[in-house]
Amino acid sequence: MRFLDTTLRDGEQAPGVSMTPDEKVEVARALDSAGVSFIEAGSACTGEGERETISEVTAQKLDATVTSFARGIQRDIDHALDCGVDGVNLVVPASDRHVETKVGSSHEEVLDRTADLVAYAKDHGLWVEVIGEDGSRADLDYLDRLAAASFDAGADRVCYADTVGHAGPERTAEVVGVLAEHGPTSAHTHDDLGLGVTNALAAINAGADLVHATVNGIGERAGNVALEEVAMALKHVYDVDTVDTTQLYRLGEVVARTTGMRPAPNKAVTGENAFAHESGIHTDGTLKDDRMYEPYPPEQVGRERRIVLGKHTGRAGARAALSEHDVEVTDEELGRVVERVKEMAGRGKRVTDADLLAVAEDVTDHERDRRVELLEVTATSGSSVPSAAIRLDVDGEEVVASGTGSGPVDSAVSAVKSAVKDFGDAHLKSYHVDAVTGGTDAVVTVEVTMAREDREVTVAHSDADITRASVTAMVDALDRLLTESPRATPTADD
Amino acid sequence: MRFLDTTLRDGEQAPGVSMTPDEKVEVARALDSAGVSFIEAGSACTGEGERETISEVTAQKLDATVTSFARGIQRDIDHALDCGVDGVNLVVPASDRHVETKVGSSHEEVLDRTADLVAYAKDHGLWVEVIGEDGSRADLDYLDRLAAASFDAGADRVCYADTVGHAGPERTAEVVGVLAEHGPTSAHTHDDLGLGVTNALAAINAGADLVHATVNGIGERAGNVALEEVAMALKHVYDVDTVDTTQLYRLGEVVARTTGMRPAPNKAVTGENAFAHESGIHTDGTLKDDRMYEPYPPEQVGRERRIVLGKHTGRAGARAALSEHDVEVTDEELGRVVERVKEMAGRGKRVTDADLLAVAEDVTDHERDRRVELLEVTATSGSSVPSAAIRLDVDGEEVVASGTGSGPVDSAVSAVKSAVKDFGDAHLKSYHVDAVTGGTDAVVTVEVTMAREDREVTVAHSDADITRASVTAMVDALDRLLTESPRATPTADD
Repeated sequence: MRFLDTTLRDGEQAPGVSMTPDEKVEVARALDSAGVSFIEAGSACTGEGERETISEVTAQKLDATVTSFARGIQRDIDHALDCGVDGVNLVVPASDRHVETKVGSSHEEVLDRTADLVAYAKDHGLWVEVIGEDGSRADLDYLDRLAAASFDAGADRVCYADTVGHAGPERTAEVVGVLAEHGPTSAHTHDDLGLGVTNALAAINAGADLVHATVNGIGERAGNVALEEVAMALKHVYDVDTVDTTQLYRLGEVVARTTGMRPAPNKAVTGENAFAHESGIHTDGTLKDDRMYEPYPPEQVGRERRIVLGKHTGRAGARAALSEHDVEVTDEELGRVVERVKEMAGRGKRVTDADLLAVAEDVTDHERDRRVELLEVTATSGSSVPSAAIRLDVDGEEVVASGTGSGPVDSAVSAVKSAVKDFGDAHLKSYHVDAVTGGTDAVVTVEVTMAREDREVTVAHSDADITRASVTAMVDALDRLLTESPRATPTADD
Repeated sequence: MRFLDTTLRDGEQAPGVSMTPDEKVEVARALDSAGVSFIEAGSACTGEGERETISEVTAQKLDATVTSFARGIQRDIDHALDCGVDGVNLVVPASDRHVETKVGSSHEEVLDRTADLVAYAKDHGLWVEVIGEDGSRADLDYLDRLAAASFDAGADRVCYADTVGHAGPERTAEVVGVLAEHGPTSAHTHDDLGLGVTNALAAINAGADLVHATVNGIGERAGNVALEEVAMALKHVYDVDTVDTTQLYRLGEVVARTTGMRPAPNKAVTGENAFAHESGIHTDGTLKDDRMYEPYPPEQVGRERRIVLGKHTGRAGARAALSEHDVEVTDEELGRVVERVKEMAGRGKRVTDADLLAVAEDVTDHERDRRVELLEVTATSGSSVPSAAIRLDVDGEEVVASGTGSGPVDSAVSAVKSAVKDFGDAHLKSYHVDAVTGGTDAVVTVEVTMAREDREVTVAHSDADITRASVTAMVDALDRLLTESPRATPTADD
């Protein structure tokens, strides 16, 4: 069982996705490093820019076999050859709908042309896979003849394509069974009905030994089957090794960054929450026994477990989160902390480190002296040079400072930096603004993580004014980093 | 085949998700209207707030059977009764790991307690489903006895739970087969390995007749199986009707809005791109024959098809997009428009209506007089009252205006509104800011859709200064709405 990854071809055909040559090279290298066998680098017929990009991928001399998509015309194969690829994925119409409506041709014509093109590509030293487009809706006898003609002409393999994500597992197995009698067979499945993985597994069961997939399942419409899901299902359920699974999370991140298509938090393997636990029962169980609420350890895909605080937080989860900040509380105090955290979350608030620590201080009646507090911020932006002025209380003294930057928030951040002498090596580790949808008066949520020496703290703030939300969160995070935690004794195990 | 929707219970347990009572009621009503048979409204043992929320849901007098999650203790059933639910989902440990490690109990104890609790719940008039937690990793003989004991005590059904998303379809079928011999059986599957749908179908095949699912597949970790995927797979592949599928998209939108968990663009059925076409081959095919690149018409799930412009845009897609703006171009001009659109997208730019129209004007050498142009904007925000001043060129005259609002952008929008007399019924239909991740100097992309009478236009603008990006996009959209399209003759068919 091996993979052909088509993130760079079918994945890039996702509406709105476009990758630069450098980005394609970065993804190709990551795929190669994870041990993917085939990389479809693009579609050489798309244009000169695409051909240059594919050429840059082939120039990397990867271990993987690098291919280009090619329609059933000789010019496309020539274009692919110009890019120095190792092989082509030759797509010819298979269903009647495609043979007749789309290309205005007949079965016989397609069979003859396919044989000629396969022979042509093989003569030029290419690895050749023949994909019968819309194969899931094609006539079985015709597919049978198409596979025979392809292998007779020298093709290395044929591919079952559920181009529109239409088939169920029974139909998939039926078609793949027919193709696999002729020789090596691949499966190309889409997720329009949520059956991408179901059908990939059905295809493997029926004799397919190469799966076309994309990282994070991106692709046309609802996307292709996700490489990381098939890889983990094969490994965990069937004990079949394919790629280096410890690189799957990193792969997902690289593809999310380069395509701008971020997986949903609940995406299997690569989603933000795939190994996060909030619910009381689950967190408690997980802290007692890692495997209690996880099918496999997150390290298997290169990740770590996360405990998240919220409405369903229980005692064990809250204690674990407090102990990350070296805060110890009594059993009675813990109960009150949990109560307050749940109540906060019940109002729809995201509970961050800073919120938890504030609750713990309040409950333990620990007086914390703030070291930095925002008194005022004014930022100006637009056509002028963006600038900001701030007034802070730093250790009881009022400090005023100003700064410029690329926008109002950036200016304010630079003003804060110049106002706080003890800033030291404190730095903004991440700055995240939730996507804003609605009117221009929508509330914006800004989450800031600041780090200093070996500590880091996350604070979120919501406001209709993005400048105020950002600067307040950033100053609160800085203050947390500069002050001690309430009781800096190590947490005892209970 | 029916559904139990657990968006309000397992879905809400997703890390960071918390719904207000009003939001839960809204989701419950939408589920009921779509014809979902069972709605698990929450977990009555969580606390007083949760009980009030469940009570509000039961007060709706929905057609659906409304249930609460209950752990295997009598207090939980009492709490559920207090909320006026129709039934309980009674969760008892099934796997050895859960029986021993988690609750420190024995098989016999669990069997006895389960029988007592089922009898207690039935005595109080409840519909009762017994869920053997972590059933996919449980001992089959024990599950067999648990099912027998449950039905003997009067349970209405038992449920196979793949609590950690660990099983494959073979194991699922094996366990469900054992349970279904005793009586009505449900399936509760998770998507950690991407097998949520695969296993739900395997369970149905093995005798399950009720599927636990969530809208958009939200839930603990990688989430539960998605209701809309199972519903569409059953309808399209197996011709089995469950819910009113035309409400699936609306359901997805309601849940995305109320939970803040937006599905990825490539999410099946409910994702933004599920019926969007960009690639030249696909768009061309779809315009010739709807079914060419779609498994079923988008109307079946309450949606419409979208043509998106980008790197893979072909002639047919570009002509279709132009004709939406009543713009006609010659074949030769069309070729140049396509070339320019692809080149734009190749640089990673999102191609909007405004970009397409600008390219068409340039190619057709059509001189368009701008009516509104942004000359300058200055916005002030922070602790003070947010305000903005703008200088516009409106029909050749310089106009200056100011405005206040909830933040810098909102202020600038109100300033523009007061400066343009012809503003008429023009209004911001949507304002979307992509999530910003990185530093405070990251480039922000703002996409604005403005509507006026029966026209609407989308413009995107990117800038490190969010105020400048927003106001520029908004003024450009307004200008487009106030000016005529290049050649306002209907598009001829070619």
